[in-house]
Amino acid sequence: MNRTNNCGELSKTNLNQNVKLSGWVNKVREKGFIIWVDLRDRYGITQLVFDKERSSEELFSAAAELGREFVIEVEGNVIERKNINEKISTGEIEILVSSMKILNKSLVPPFTLENESDGGEELRMKYRYLDIRRQPVKENLMFRHELSLEVRNFLSKNGFIDIETPCLIKSTPEGARDFIVPSRLNPEHYYALPQSPQIFKQLLMIGGIDKYYQIVKCFRDEDLRADRQPEFTQIDCEMSFVDQEDIFRQFEGLMSRLFSKFLNQENVKFERMTYNDAIENYGIDKPDLRYDLRINDITNETKGKGFQVFDNNNFSCCVKVENKSELTRKEIDNLTDWIKRPQIGASGLLWIRHNSDSTIKSSFDKFFSEEDLKVILDRASSKPGDILFIISGNKKESLMQMGSLRIELAKRFELIDYEKTCPIWVTDFPLFEWDEDEKRFFSMHHPFTSAKPEYLDLLDTEPDKVIANAYDLVLNGNEIGGGSIRIHDFDTQMKIFELLGMSKEEYTSQFGFLIDALKYGAPPHGGIAFGLDRLAAVFKGKDVIRDFIAFPKNNSGKDLMIDAPSKLTKEQLKDLSN
Amino acid sequence: MNRTNNCGELSKTNLNQNVKLSGWVNKVREKGFIIWVDLRDRYGITQLVFDKERSSEELFSAAAELGREFVIEVEGNVIERKNINEKISTGEIEILVSSMKILNKSLVPPFTLENESDGGEELRMKYRYLDIRRQPVKENLMFRHELSLEVRNFLSKNGFIDIETPCLIKSTPEGARDFIVPSRLNPEHYYALPQSPQIFKQLLMIGGIDKYYQIVKCFRDEDLRADRQPEFTQIDCEMSFVDQEDIFRQFEGLMSRLFSKFLNQENVKFERMTYNDAIENYGIDKPDLRYDLRINDITNETKGKGFQVFDNNNFSCCVKVENKSELTRKEIDNLTDWIKRPQIGASGLLWIRHNSDSTIKSSFDKFFSEEDLKVILDRASSKPGDILFIISGNKKESLMQMGSLRIELAKRFELIDYEKTCPIWVTDFPLFEWDEDEKRFFSMHHPFTSAKPEYLDLLDTEPDKVIANAYDLVLNGNEIGGGSIRIHDFDTQMKIFELLGMSKEEYTSQFGFLIDALKYGAPPHGGIAFGLDRLAAVFKGKDVIRDFIAFPKNNSGKDLMIDAPSKLTKEQLKDLSN
Repeated sequence: MNRTNNCGELSKTNLNQNVKLSGWVNKVREKGFIIWVDLRDRYGITQLVFDKERSSEELFSAAAELGREFVIEVEGNVIERKNINEKISTGEIEILVSSMKILNKSLVPPFTLENESDGGEELRMKYRYLDIRRQPVKENLMFRHELSLEVRNFLSKNGFIDIETPCLIKSTPEGARDFIVPSRLNPEHYYALPQSPQIFKQLLMIGGIDKYYQIVKCFRDEDLRADRQPEFTQIDCEMSFVDQEDIFRQFEGLMSRLFSKFLNQENVKFERMTYNDAIENYGIDKPDLRYDLRINDITNETKGKGFQVFDNNNFSCCVKVENKSELTRKEIDNLTDWIKRPQIGASGLLWIRHNSDSTIKSSFDKFFSEEDLKVILDRASSKPGDILFIISGNKKESLMQMGSLRIELAKRFELIDYEKTCPIWVTDFPLFEWDEDEKRFFSMHHPFTSAKPEYLDLLDTEPDKVIANAYDLVLNGNEIGGGSIRIHDFDTQMKIFELLGMSKEEYTSQFGFLIDALKYGAPPHGGIAFGLDRLAAVFKGKDVIRDFIAFPKNNSGKDLMIDAPSKLTKEQLKDLSN
Repeated sequence: MNRTNNCGELSKTNLNQNVKLSGWVNKVREKGFIIWVDLRDRYGITQLVFDKERSSEELFSAAAELGREFVIEVEGNVIERKNINEKISTGEIEILVSSMKILNKSLVPPFTLENESDGGEELRMKYRYLDIRRQPVKENLMFRHELSLEVRNFLSKNGFIDIETPCLIKSTPEGARDFIVPSRLNPEHYYALPQSPQIFKQLLMIGGIDKYYQIVKCFRDEDLRADRQPEFTQIDCEMSFVDQEDIFRQFEGLMSRLFSKFLNQENVKFERMTYNDAIENYGIDKPDLRYDLRINDITNETKGKGFQVFDNNNFSCCVKVENKSELTRKEIDNLTDWIKRPQIGASGLLWIRHNSDSTIKSSFDKFFSEEDLKVILDRASSKPGDILFIISGNKKESLMQMGSLRIELAKRFELIDYEKTCPIWVTDFPLFEWDEDEKRFFSMHHPFTSAKPEYLDLLDTEPDKVIANAYDLVLNGNEIGGGSIRIHDFDTQMKIFELLGMSKEEYTSQFGFLIDALKYGAPPHGGIAFGLDRLAAVFKGKDVIRDFIAFPKNNSGKDLMIDAPSKLTKEQLKDLSN
């Protein structure tokens, strides 16, 4: 062992002890007769001292040669420190070094390894092993570890069994694109990597496992957007003999445990909201309730005043920002530009200032009397000092644009209460989405989601009106989990496949084993899956999941450190084309 | 919720309670006026009663229609049972059913779901979800869960951080064959699935993580032998600033915890044995010490008596089986046939009977006097009543054959003490193996294994004599884990790559990032990995790891249930050939 202690644990209780430490040279300060070295490891930093009086000449000059990130092993005595450093746990002591061994040298790192690094994203990804030495990155990884261990222990105590499902499975073209793995032993046959263990967990329920969980890698070969990873990790859960309420109760329990342990928040209330209400009030299916900015439908209040924008569109809505009536013209223009960007796509942004002196001013004063404007202000319960932003257009798009604006306003005007924890169960999703390009229905969740019983009759006549037994868990504006009560009935499952436009041949060849399984006593069951990467990020108030992944890929799906994907040798390519 | 209680928890304390249960119909017995149904779920079996007196006519006839594996929900009253069934925890009570709902029907399963099934391996794999309903299979999966959770909690308490390493990595042709994953976003570029997270865990050590673990899927595209799986699970660990002794101490701690918790064995002693001693004394690098049958080298004792078999071979060895001198000729012939099978390949089996009356008889009496035979018996410390089996030939092969015979003898003569737990650290493996076909060295462990310092000088001159800092943990004749102290020095790592016949270009393109990382302050580090599937099997005294995997593949790497690998659609193939 290269050490008796780590660099984070010595204190005044260890005075006069002879200790051995190992670690990285974090910093060297030389002041003529004295050299101080900050020795760093995962656990902390301990100050080493070499001085010309008490250290041998050889040792002193060796210390003088130390470079940043050298790995050393030292022996020495724990002594009291003159200038106490209150920022670190070992700040009351230092080690008077009696001997030193250089375990490894280091080139000068290509970026600083401080909390705030000067390295750009690409450079830090290429040298990720150095980036990980930085405290914030290490802490993220350690937090993720603690989070997943807590989840495991909670679920295990609640009777869930951790069962590994296979990674080399069968490709099912329905849904996102699979990563494909050629089988050398079975020429022209291919495995696929799982997008989720969905069918396997259902088979485990059919197998009588009753409660299952797994923290599991999933794979999706998608054209990557910012902050999407081709491989990601899911906390995957399934239960038998349950309905939606049972699922909510169980996983509110899990989340409450996590809120308590990691956020120090007790008795957090779980809101519930239908998908429709979420869209109509917040313009998004994952609303952030840490701030208000609710959307108001003002279609009726704006029609018939001769203003073409309102009159020609079938929908108008507003959000109210409190105490911002004195925004400058420039700030408003800036927001207008923002919302007209192609990513948002609004055609414009209207406004009404409800001034502190109770006067009212709008961007469409020409058409609206103060009385007319007041009706709108009342609709939004506006008070003097507030400002209203208005979007007009097609309903679906306007709500989405307003939903985006809402988030942007909260950020710009710092309206988010970071002390709040706002979980919401979003429920009552439609079972299907109509795809205008392919002229067919797609499953909004996946084809194994059941419909609410009261809508079953509509399956044949108006499938687009059928509401699913599906739910998302939204936390502070992030979808952290989602699930559904599954179909456990053979006939319904086949009907759904048919509604999705699959021929009997197609669904039998892809899902025949599931259909078979449903014939052998499948219990009612349902479940949920949480994105672990996202969950960790949301708990730490971060936007970027990449920061919580030890070796993430960039937006082109590349690992810049190991340089993957890469070309193959001729022999490997030959094996592949067998 | 479909139940107030599960099928394994009701007892006399619940008498007269009204309960709701859900589960599978395990068995139906009808006796004129009474129908008993065994209702089964993961937690147990509860007996339901329907009788013509107390149940409605409708309910009674519905019960009469129930088939095996139907899924039902019942409500009823907990009543005392007349004939107590002591075999099950709920055996003192039964449920007088007042209402019943059929949640799902079931076809008759293709095999019985009893503890001993009548289903063949293939059939049970195809309907694995039914096989999992069988108690022994379910118990194996639950044991695996408990085992891995215990490992996680032990390692976490000991400061190890669970960090996920990527699954989509870079192919490195050195070693076993990789599974390859084409990257659609990067045409003609490929990911590989990891054979182990070896390099990533080393990078985590270089990143200052200090102690890492992960329970992780690994992949090997090998021509499958019996009981090998293309995907398998490793308990993967790595530590910084350690030597071999530190690793042993840490993981003896882990294993002792598991022995205590799962085998009720305290203070189990960990033997140590060099690779050479293991081969010379047991003919195998993973000896089972639950029985003796040590191999004795009797080359000297057998030479020069004019018996060509001994005189023409350079090595002869024996094992002694106690109290078996009276084996029949047929039994001996049978062993001789066994050892001459091509899988073992011995040319013959000689023997000496040390009869109970102290007379001695051998299969080569013609050449050996009783005195000569006695010398051999003494060498093996034989007592009257024992028998010696002798193999002669080339040393390496003879030891291997005798090692196999040793295991076979222990099985045939039931010499294994199943109460014993015999862990051994096998140490001092050679660093390299010479491959006669390719005329080059291969790493016995992997190219990142360090040499013992005292052998470093031999690297240039006699690499085959270099002993590695590598070790295996063997439990009851199974290699359950293996690891090494790694190279943390840049120059040594390059030298090893060169000794393995890699050009600078080759090792830079494959392992450049590791070589780079070694330049930036890599700490001394080492680790170990355990096969979780194997570990679970060995703890349960089972030979077949497949029984501990929820959805295993067969010996051709096929999943018979989902029918994977399979053909792709034209669209998918087109995507692949981009």
